[in-house]
Amino acid sequence: MASIFTRIIQGEIPCHKVGENDDFLAFLDISPLREGHTLVVPKLEVDRFFDLPPALMAGIMSFAQEVAERLRRAVPCDRVGVAVIGLEVPHAHVHLIPIDRMADMDFTREKLKLTQEELAAIAERIRTA
Amino acid sequence: MASIFTRIIQGEIPCHKVGENDDFLAFLDISPLREGHTLVVPKLEVDRFFDLPPALMAGIMSFAQEVAERLRRAVPCDRVGVAVIGLEVPHAHVHLIPIDRMADMDFTREKLKLTQEELAAIAERIRTA
Repeated sequence: MASIFTRIIQGEIPCHKVGENDDFLAFLDISPLREGHTLVVPKLEVDRFFDLPPALMAGIMSFAQEVAERLRRAVPCDRVGVAVIGLEVPHAHVHLIPIDRMADMDFTREKLKLTQEELAAIAERIRTA
Repeated sequence: MASIFTRIIQGEIPCHKVGENDDFLAFLDISPLREGHTLVVPKLEVDRFFDLPPALMAGIMSFAQEVAERLRRAVPCDRVGVAVIGLEVPHAHVHLIPIDRMADMDFTREKLKLTQEELAAIAERIRTA
């Protein structure tokens, strides 16, 4: 069965998109640690991040870099943190998180609850930053 | 003043090296979250990860992929997680961490205390894996 991310990539499930190219899609995490918390996903469905083919491995951070630059302009923060964990969804994904302190990257704490309207507004700010 | 990572790269401060090429160095974190917790550092001293020049941004994950493959062979784990935070040392670095559960990536919990001998043995296992 296709992963939830493949279903998002195929447009079967909606998302708050912030960037896309031939190989990757970036969209907001709907359970964010911080406003602007974004997922970067390869369109190729691979479970483990480090099992990505070499060309996609080289490309994913270049794509993420462009997204992170817009994210930092849209969401005031010290820097954009990166996390790849992947224990929940078996489709490799990179978390991009605006951070100011270590706790902003703590995945064990409670996530923010944002409305669809709030998420849409944040995505629009990142897209146009 | 040179960052602590530049001083490690220049050999002024010793490290438990697990990999190196022209652009990057990989060595064990001396305060690891898990055995095998590795830092991948660009030899170019840049504070924020996403301020790396595009060529290094594309290259760092390709280098990390090769290190992560050996890490997974040397340290039994479900997968190798990735974190870039960078609030403590102003020299971009990528954490590679063997993980089996979310808590393995929790930077707020207490770090392991390993002896130099234990670290040297782990580094040797990763280098030769």
